[in-house]
Amino acid sequence: MQALFLSLLVPVAFASSSFLEPRIFSLVSRGTNLDGSLPLYQNPNASIEDRVADLLPRMSLQEKVAQIIQGDIDGWMNTTDPLDNTLVFNQSGLEDMMSTKAGSIWGGYAMPYEKFVFALNVGQKYLMENTTLGIPAMFQSEGLHGFTNNGTIFPSPIGLAASFNPELLSSVANIIATEAEGLGLSQIFAPVLDMSRELRWGRVEENFGEDPFLTGEMGLAYVTGLQDGTRRNVTADGPGGIRKRMASTCKHFTAYGSPMAGLNTAPVVGSERDLRTIYLPAFQRACLESLAIMTAYSAYDSVPLVANKHILTDILRDEWQYPYWVTTDAGAVDLLISQHKTCDTRECAAKAVIENGLSGEMGGGSYTYLTLPDQVAAGTVNETYIDETVKAMLRTKFTLGLFESPYPYSDYLSTIRTPESREVLLQMEEEAIVLLENRDNVLPLSNNIGSIALIGPQVNRVTFGDYVFFNASLNGITPLAGFQEFLSNQSSSTKVNFAQGCELWSNDQSGFDEAVSVAQQSDVAIVMVGTWSLDQTLLWTPGTNATTGEHVDLSSLSLVGAQLPLVEAIVNTGKPTVVVFVSGKPVSEPWIQAHASAVIQQFYPGELGGLALPEIIFGAVNPSGMPKALLSCKLPVSFPRSVGTTPDFYNYLNGMRPIDAGMITDNDTLIFGHQYVLNSPVPIWSFGHGLSYTTFNYTDLSLNPVSIGISDNFNVTVIVHNTGSVDGKEVVQVYLSDVVSSVVTPVQRLVGFQKIDLPAGSSQTVSIEVDSSQLALWNLNDQWAVEPGEFMVTIGTSDEIFAQATLTVAA
Amino acid sequence: MQALFLSLLVPVAFASSSFLEPRIFSLVSRGTNLDGSLPLYQNPNASIEDRVADLLPRMSLQEKVAQIIQGDIDGWMNTTDPLDNTLVFNQSGLEDMMSTKAGSIWGGYAMPYEKFVFALNVGQKYLMENTTLGIPAMFQSEGLHGFTNNGTIFPSPIGLAASFNPELLSSVANIIATEAEGLGLSQIFAPVLDMSRELRWGRVEENFGEDPFLTGEMGLAYVTGLQDGTRRNVTADGPGGIRKRMASTCKHFTAYGSPMAGLNTAPVVGSERDLRTIYLPAFQRACLESLAIMTAYSAYDSVPLVANKHILTDILRDEWQYPYWVTTDAGAVDLLISQHKTCDTRECAAKAVIENGLSGEMGGGSYTYLTLPDQVAAGTVNETYIDETVKAMLRTKFTLGLFESPYPYSDYLSTIRTPESREVLLQMEEEAIVLLENRDNVLPLSNNIGSIALIGPQVNRVTFGDYVFFNASLNGITPLAGFQEFLSNQSSSTKVNFAQGCELWSNDQSGFDEAVSVAQQSDVAIVMVGTWSLDQTLLWTPGTNATTGEHVDLSSLSLVGAQLPLVEAIVNTGKPTVVVFVSGKPVSEPWIQAHASAVIQQFYPGELGGLALPEIIFGAVNPSGMPKALLSCKLPVSFPRSVGTTPDFYNYLNGMRPIDAGMITDNDTLIFGHQYVLNSPVPIWSFGHGLSYTTFNYTDLSLNPVSIGISDNFNVTVIVHNTGSVDGKEVVQVYLSDVVSSVVTPVQRLVGFQKIDLPAGSSQTVSIEVDSSQLALWNLNDQWAVEPGEFMVTIGTSDEIFAQATLTVAA
Repeated sequence: MQALFLSLLVPVAFASSSFLEPRIFSLVSRGTNLDGSLPLYQNPNASIEDRVADLLPRMSLQEKVAQIIQGDIDGWMNTTDPLDNTLVFNQSGLEDMMSTKAGSIWGGYAMPYEKFVFALNVGQKYLMENTTLGIPAMFQSEGLHGFTNNGTIFPSPIGLAASFNPELLSSVANIIATEAEGLGLSQIFAPVLDMSRELRWGRVEENFGEDPFLTGEMGLAYVTGLQDGTRRNVTADGPGGIRKRMASTCKHFTAYGSPMAGLNTAPVVGSERDLRTIYLPAFQRACLESLAIMTAYSAYDSVPLVANKHILTDILRDEWQYPYWVTTDAGAVDLLISQHKTCDTRECAAKAVIENGLSGEMGGGSYTYLTLPDQVAAGTVNETYIDETVKAMLRTKFTLGLFESPYPYSDYLSTIRTPESREVLLQMEEEAIVLLENRDNVLPLSNNIGSIALIGPQVNRVTFGDYVFFNASLNGITPLAGFQEFLSNQSSSTKVNFAQGCELWSNDQSGFDEAVSVAQQSDVAIVMVGTWSLDQTLLWTPGTNATTGEHVDLSSLSLVGAQLPLVEAIVNTGKPTVVVFVSGKPVSEPWIQAHASAVIQQFYPGELGGLALPEIIFGAVNPSGMPKALLSCKLPVSFPRSVGTTPDFYNYLNGMRPIDAGMITDNDTLIFGHQYVLNSPVPIWSFGHGLSYTTFNYTDLSLNPVSIGISDNFNVTVIVHNTGSVDGKEVVQVYLSDVVSSVVTPVQRLVGFQKIDLPAGSSQTVSIEVDSSQLALWNLNDQWAVEPGEFMVTIGTSDEIFAQATLTVAA
Repeated sequence: MQALFLSLLVPVAFASSSFLEPRIFSLVSRGTNLDGSLPLYQNPNASIEDRVADLLPRMSLQEKVAQIIQGDIDGWMNTTDPLDNTLVFNQSGLEDMMSTKAGSIWGGYAMPYEKFVFALNVGQKYLMENTTLGIPAMFQSEGLHGFTNNGTIFPSPIGLAASFNPELLSSVANIIATEAEGLGLSQIFAPVLDMSRELRWGRVEENFGEDPFLTGEMGLAYVTGLQDGTRRNVTADGPGGIRKRMASTCKHFTAYGSPMAGLNTAPVVGSERDLRTIYLPAFQRACLESLAIMTAYSAYDSVPLVANKHILTDILRDEWQYPYWVTTDAGAVDLLISQHKTCDTRECAAKAVIENGLSGEMGGGSYTYLTLPDQVAAGTVNETYIDETVKAMLRTKFTLGLFESPYPYSDYLSTIRTPESREVLLQMEEEAIVLLENRDNVLPLSNNIGSIALIGPQVNRVTFGDYVFFNASLNGITPLAGFQEFLSNQSSSTKVNFAQGCELWSNDQSGFDEAVSVAQQSDVAIVMVGTWSLDQTLLWTPGTNATTGEHVDLSSLSLVGAQLPLVEAIVNTGKPTVVVFVSGKPVSEPWIQAHASAVIQQFYPGELGGLALPEIIFGAVNPSGMPKALLSCKLPVSFPRSVGTTPDFYNYLNGMRPIDAGMITDNDTLIFGHQYVLNSPVPIWSFGHGLSYTTFNYTDLSLNPVSIGISDNFNVTVIVHNTGSVDGKEVVQVYLSDVVSSVVTPVQRLVGFQKIDLPAGSSQTVSIEVDSSQLALWNLNDQWAVEPGEFMVTIGTSDEIFAQATLTVAA
């Protein structure tokens, strides 16, 4: 009855173009039952599906459409000055906003917490108290390595992945959620599960590397860590179903990380098989419980992902039965008109996205979804698609307990930058640094060393990756300050000599003399070079520069400007030279690999990266006085010798890498080969590589069972020995190769890993279960299949074999 | 009855391992009917299908299998010394060969013609007279830009494509066929229809460029030119059906030109849509009448192309109804075991290829097809697949009239290197040179110029591309000799000063002083640099060097060694400097574009390339004394700014190329952009670009009709005016863009072109018909469809618009 009433009333209202006017509340409140009782949807103990079924028919078409268009707190707040703290709002702007864009509200602005909480309270209170149905909004922000309104900044995701430590990443995500929840947020746009298989692309730093399996495991750890728990006043796992406290948003669904020519948002080439085996697995592993998913800007196989029925409906909704909120990225719907050329009107774009994608529309564009009411009235769009999309949004909100706990907490300050979160941060900083080379064990440096030279443009700056707030770097410690603090804490008399040498962004070598002089005066030189990004404000400000980050795409992976010559000048002094790459992606500098005494990779750090670096370089001790077990992390991405030798991910298809390498020697002699003529397709350092200060040995590899059926899991068991003289952490990596298969498969794939702590001299038995699904290939019938036969199981890194055994799969 | 007899007899024979022993001819001759009459298959007036149907049942399984394994004249001839001319053969080797590998015989050896003809006569005579059925072999060689046993060498295919002159290419192919036919060959392994969309790949020079349409048109011209006509003693178009005189072999079917990372034979990534829209069109256009097709080494979407049922059976045989011979490439079947890992036995590999590919097996591997008889006996392979493959081979032979004309001609010398072929060659050389830059009309040089400096490592050598015979370059003229001959013919007093400056393959700059001095002494400097390949013998000889050619893959597209510094040194003299790239692929040197007075691209020339170059540079005259209409050719491939900005083909998908270019200035200042940070995705020169010595103007563009139905063709008509002062040739190019489409389509596609001769001051109306199929896209239902709506029709090059009009397609 009510539904019929609405279907008669609403189209007329929209047809008269009243959509943008402030809503006049109807005399009959649809927020309560006619008998005055609380409607079912307001009952936290009712099942989520029952609540959704109860609420949806109460919503007008206008309310439904408003529920699936992203609003923005800039509708009622002045967001232009990040330092302004004026607690006022615009009433008519608020009403306008909430009448058309009320389901989710973008709040990712840098502003004082007091104003931020004020803004959220005003908006949410309006929805809860001044609208008929009282549907709270999800307030949203970024947070892929820290909540972006002045929350704790952790290392960029590529560094988080280098930890190979899902448990630690869950702790990180938990801190991000805690900081954001207190301020009233309920949705974070993370994690990013794109694959870093096209290294020119600016957003490599936002991903968990080149590998589907690692990305899936780290993604799941992030989603779990962010979401698990309940908002205050919400009963966990009650009669109404399982609750989560924060909506994670897996993005960018899908294949967005492999744009043609590395150009941001460019189309992605690939087949159904590539989709299934490369791009979807991480999402399927990590995101089935994620309360939100964001689609990608690009097209896959010529079908724009925002309107990709096969991926968004057939696979995500039907195959995977994904029930939650799906949103486009900012302005993405309009790209159907301006970029993909599959529509020439906003009406066409809105229809294409809602009908194929069952997703909401984010801001940042022309709000094409404002055309939906008229399109429903005209019969060009079926309201069913809108209903399904609204239902997905409502499921997410009910699962969050948002109706019961919509507001910021008054004690929000108590959950930001706690001592406990600092501890997790420091550990993650340590675990995001990879030791790539260490000739003659030049590292760790002795605490008794007389002097060190800190040289290079990365020494006296905080180099964060993208997706941090304006001026976030002010919360970070520079490596220069970090070394001084570390040495001071050690009461060390080691002298620190600093020279910048050059800028990151210039060929000016006028600082070289000083740098060389500083190196010559010191016992060891540490040269810090790399790439750089900018915060979310500056990155998009004309006139700024950066070499990584969103919409910052490279045509070369070499160091920019005078950086390589600076390293060469310091190495040529003859002093032991440790080169530290601080970067958001692999830097291709084979000369440095060949000539530096040691090479360290610090992926873009978080706030304590400057402190973690001296801990690694000197070998830090625990409060107990024992050396910390450091250097436990591994490369989540391979380092190519040049942009011209890419892609060089480790899990390439059989037959991809003929090797007959040529080279140009240090004295410019040309030595000719064929693959490549003057280079090699073998990366400088391959996925999974990472040195330690101790040594490990692997024995007694066994498979249990050694022969399985096609749907059986199996265990890989091996004894790991710390054969060195210091404690260490090790990442035990399990790779799998299909010996013979009906279609061409990768030469190897990571299928399991486990990080262990191993005291010097001790041994540990490690057993890693491999799921039978890891044996499957996407066959000629477009189905997953495990094919009987032999599989090679390898313990090692992607380019080193520590132990191998053969698994037999019987039909 | 006979079939039954064979099926009883033959498996037993094979099972007893007698397969390799000389055949004992059966008492009942299957080559004649029981009544002694000539069997139907020997009747040239019978239809081809009738002849096939008659012959097949007469063949034993052993004979069938031998028919589909490639033999080699090295079975009975000593082929090791290309200069040896001993006319002897090995009888037992001959018998061995013909009993197991007799359908096609590889003869692509460099040897004296007399010995070559002897070898072919011996082999063919044995088959015709000493075997029961008398089935002649196809003798085979290479010939993608000239028959490779010392026939005329034409420019490499990338240069042939630059001519945009299909008629001239047909003449070239006709000459290749004539030279080969006289020597007894009946199959040439050309044309190559791979796309040059991955420029690192070594074999770019063998293709007709980056564009499917141009490749299809040039491919068709080649196939037609090579095949059309009849062998001697063969009746053309008689009651037995249409005849061809030479089997063209379209290769490599398909998608072989886009190997991952540019590594030869590496897997190709792509979807069904990519297959249909990028890789198949040229084959479909050019090869339906080609008497042979060769499959590719690589895998497409993880399915090895030698065993790709979808492509080789479903599409090629069923959709396209292709009836002729399909062969693998050399050794390709074994790659299923060694590279693709889809088989672990020769039996598996042979079964996979015959059953999915219906193709023969080329030599160069382990001859896995020798397992087929036993596999048929064991029931693992169905003989039907072998029958179908044999039938395809027989159709090709009957179409060639090979049973009627199997032998070399005694007057073979009269058809090699005739004056007429030299004329065609010279014209093609002229039409394979592109003028890329011409600042202040520095070119053409005046005949009165006092002196020119010829500088660089390409001046005094003949730089042929790959797929030429041993020492082929001895038939070529160097540019140095060409300039001297040209000037001498003109009775010119222009002095030629030569300095090599550097080697192609070294960083040694010790010759720079001389080169600079030579430039300073001259009125203009012509600097010739580029890439180089080797002949088929040296290319595979350890210790040699090359930068292009099969299995020679680059990681950089820049000039190797001291070449760029040499150009810089000469430009810096201040003398007008003309840079000539002699290369097999685009050279990425934006500095040269920006600083040279003129830039000429000479794709690897043929034997007269050294003579064509001065004709272009000075502006040659016809025998009549009138200036030749030169410079009529256009780039068939775009020139990227660096390997890091690839791919940059012109027909990229909508949305691929955001442009916010950065750069490094000449004084090493960094100017930051975003796409790319320090570079541009826009090529230096784009597909279709090519300057002229005259100027053209386009007016009165019209479409007829301007509105069509979805299956209608239309005409693009435009008036072209030669507005300059010299005669000229112009390539009128028609591009099409789908304004709005259901899937993402390329920003533009070439859909028509026509080359015209236009005297100075004159005008010509050009009308180009565009087939309705050019409007089609591969839609979401995996079907070709022309979608109603608007299409933009552009006359221009891929980066210049001369005229535009809108075509409307109605439902």
